[in-house]
Amino acid sequence: MPHMLIIGGSDAGISAALRIKELDARAEVTVVVADAFPNFSICGLPFYLSGEAPNWRNLAHRSAEEIESHGIRLLLSHRAKSIDARAKIVEIASGGGLNRVAYDRLLIATGAESARPPILGLDAPGVFFLRWMGDSFAVKQFLDQTKPRRAVVIGGGYIGLEMADALTHRQIEVTLMEFAPEVLTTLDPELGARIREELLSKGVHVINGQAVQSIESKQGLLTVQTATGNNQETDMVIVAAGAKPATALARTAGIGLGAGGAIRVDRTMATGIADIWAAGDCVETWHRMLAANVYMPLGTTAHKQGRVAGENMLGGRREFQGSLGTQVVKVFDQVAARTGLRDKEALAAGFDPLTVALTVWDHKVYYPGAKETYIRITGDRPSGRLLGAQMVGHRATEVSKRIDIFAAALYHQMQVDALADLDLSYTPPLSSPWDPVQMAAMQWVLAVNKKSERN
Amino acid sequence: MPHMLIIGGSDAGISAALRIKELDARAEVTVVVADAFPNFSICGLPFYLSGEAPNWRNLAHRSAEEIESHGIRLLLSHRAKSIDARAKIVEIASGGGLNRVAYDRLLIATGAESARPPILGLDAPGVFFLRWMGDSFAVKQFLDQTKPRRAVVIGGGYIGLEMADALTHRQIEVTLMEFAPEVLTTLDPELGARIREELLSKGVHVINGQAVQSIESKQGLLTVQTATGNNQETDMVIVAAGAKPATALARTAGIGLGAGGAIRVDRTMATGIADIWAAGDCVETWHRMLAANVYMPLGTTAHKQGRVAGENMLGGRREFQGSLGTQVVKVFDQVAARTGLRDKEALAAGFDPLTVALTVWDHKVYYPGAKETYIRITGDRPSGRLLGAQMVGHRATEVSKRIDIFAAALYHQMQVDALADLDLSYTPPLSSPWDPVQMAAMQWVLAVNKKSERN
Repeated sequence: MPHMLIIGGSDAGISAALRIKELDARAEVTVVVADAFPNFSICGLPFYLSGEAPNWRNLAHRSAEEIESHGIRLLLSHRAKSIDARAKIVEIASGGGLNRVAYDRLLIATGAESARPPILGLDAPGVFFLRWMGDSFAVKQFLDQTKPRRAVVIGGGYIGLEMADALTHRQIEVTLMEFAPEVLTTLDPELGARIREELLSKGVHVINGQAVQSIESKQGLLTVQTATGNNQETDMVIVAAGAKPATALARTAGIGLGAGGAIRVDRTMATGIADIWAAGDCVETWHRMLAANVYMPLGTTAHKQGRVAGENMLGGRREFQGSLGTQVVKVFDQVAARTGLRDKEALAAGFDPLTVALTVWDHKVYYPGAKETYIRITGDRPSGRLLGAQMVGHRATEVSKRIDIFAAALYHQMQVDALADLDLSYTPPLSSPWDPVQMAAMQWVLAVNKKSERN
Repeated sequence: MPHMLIIGGSDAGISAALRIKELDARAEVTVVVADAFPNFSICGLPFYLSGEAPNWRNLAHRSAEEIESHGIRLLLSHRAKSIDARAKIVEIASGGGLNRVAYDRLLIATGAESARPPILGLDAPGVFFLRWMGDSFAVKQFLDQTKPRRAVVIGGGYIGLEMADALTHRQIEVTLMEFAPEVLTTLDPELGARIREELLSKGVHVINGQAVQSIESKQGLLTVQTATGNNQETDMVIVAAGAKPATALARTAGIGLGAGGAIRVDRTMATGIADIWAAGDCVETWHRMLAANVYMPLGTTAHKQGRVAGENMLGGRREFQGSLGTQVVKVFDQVAARTGLRDKEALAAGFDPLTVALTVWDHKVYYPGAKETYIRITGDRPSGRLLGAQMVGHRATEVSKRIDIFAAALYHQMQVDALADLDLSYTPPLSSPWDPVQMAAMQWVLAVNKKSERN
């Protein structure tokens, strides 16, 4: 049997390994895992640190034993150093030693690294990044040992918001600093504003529009300094400034880079170098609406790409069907989600978008507990095609799975108008005869017709 | 302007009227409403009777004033008696009088009536049906005046289950009697069993598999008698044995009947008689999967059909895109939902179905509050096409909108296999990297492959 070597034991790597064994139980599969924590849910780190998921072992999608029970060989605490694509050999370090491991087919699933923004003092004690289990153990130890009273979170994206929530959960006074004028810049500011209100209502200080320049450390006291002198004294800092693809290893094999400096791949996840595939946070991602590659590291995408790669390493011809950029985050009691393109993204992609906003009850208001949700729907004026949707609401309002209805519609390039034809479920405690998703679509159609009458 | 006359002021009738005015504000629209309650949410009656929605006025999707503010004329407490399709005149009774009203285009939206099962004593005091506002006022008055301690609900469908919940909410001891071996026969018995458990856990007595023959009334005490002598003494009875289309009026116009004895219509909601359309619970419904007409009265469908009819009455050419039979019910803290075809329905329709069941957490189990949900997914073996899905779980597990993801997939005739390609939203408190919808799909694909290997 050919030897399938997989470098990286997170979402993409393990998905590929499992898919290979699912399709061919006899396949020989080895996964090189840089740390001792294969298949851990990176998305779960904030909930471990909040104390809501107190046992870190539970963050594993599967335990090492479960993975090995499929006949997959795990090389834990092994780090691939270089790839010789001609000889089909990977140099792997472990302990003090260096081994040369031959492969027949190789998957690079090295993931991403925390981006280091241009801030002085990032290496000071008490300043943390958050990506791998090791990072979270460091944070946890710091929390337990120094019992910080205050924290600054730099970055108002998903991880920053979740960490603001998590540390507040631990009764730490949190200041969230985001350079942009609003938090959650991956959504329109109207949604970010609602998340900011939620943060404020839960006691988080939010500072927008100010660039952090340096972090000063004096006798265990940190001072986060901005260009305008809005300095924050604090006991710890979490830097959540995004991710960049881990491509150093791929480059040793002569593999080209693409969007966002990520590993270039085609839709079969092939790199163009014979018998080498790549998947997950280290690669560029085919965007189904843009019909182009972007860099958008997401766990859901990594799982899908890993699965496609695994199938193709066995000779399959599966194509990754593309990302719609579907994302969701829970911040305290609010949930914000998106799928597809926002107005400005659609405009940049050559569409002629119209975006309509509405506030609508999640279910019939006569039934107790109805809550208002806010939806923005974007469609292409000339074609009437749905381009994207964003939604924010209380966690009980099924925002996440409502965005998924839009995502399923986008997958099929639906017209906005046709959303009203979907046979969606209704009972007064959970929806309305026209689901909010459909109300948004109907509002959009009315708006686009009104605009075209006026022209 | 041509006169648009609409008979029936519930979901289909008002949807049509609103659509007409939306498309042409100058259109002359009259709606004949048999009672004083236009556009009331029939689905809301159980929640009014439970006390959860104490003000019955809130059950209106829109008030009479709101409807009239669109320029729609409402004839409340008017009842259409006959249609002269040649002269294009409807005879309408109100108070003591009878008026002849001319129309240019007519919509029949007379809805359905409660089915009367072959049980003796249905007219005894304390025995109630539940369909219109008048019915619910009668029940409410009885509850308030006689303060019943016990109730029997005959019928374990949606309304019966919701009434069992509602009366329990009022501290009434409820016995639910269902002729079939399991409750909720519109879903597979594995799901019905979970709903029965929920009923039992909330103190409802459930009697299955016994036919009620008669209801005996003696000095305000009712006895519900079955063929096998399993008699239940009670203070009140709710008969929830389904609905049948109200077609008497349509027959006066010579309109033919179709599936389930409902008014025959094409997909434009035209009846075949010139200038007469019909929509809602009185008509047969195009089933998108079966490509045939069925009788399946649902509020969501009535809204859609009314909207289509309204557009076409103005000269439009919109087609009703069909029902998938999507339905959901909340019973105490559990939600059960379905879309598409069940195994036996698919078999009867000529498919070669395989149904796979799985129990799966609604979100990552390390995050607090994860609950198991039960999913049944049905696909066509030879083609791999998705045929349907059923799901039951706690009301917090987004069962309803997850079924809608399946519904959106069914609308587009997706392959089961392709569901894994959908870019659905994920955050640990709300889902998994593969949503339960996708886990079900992947399980189905594995099962079908295993079965075909074996063959």
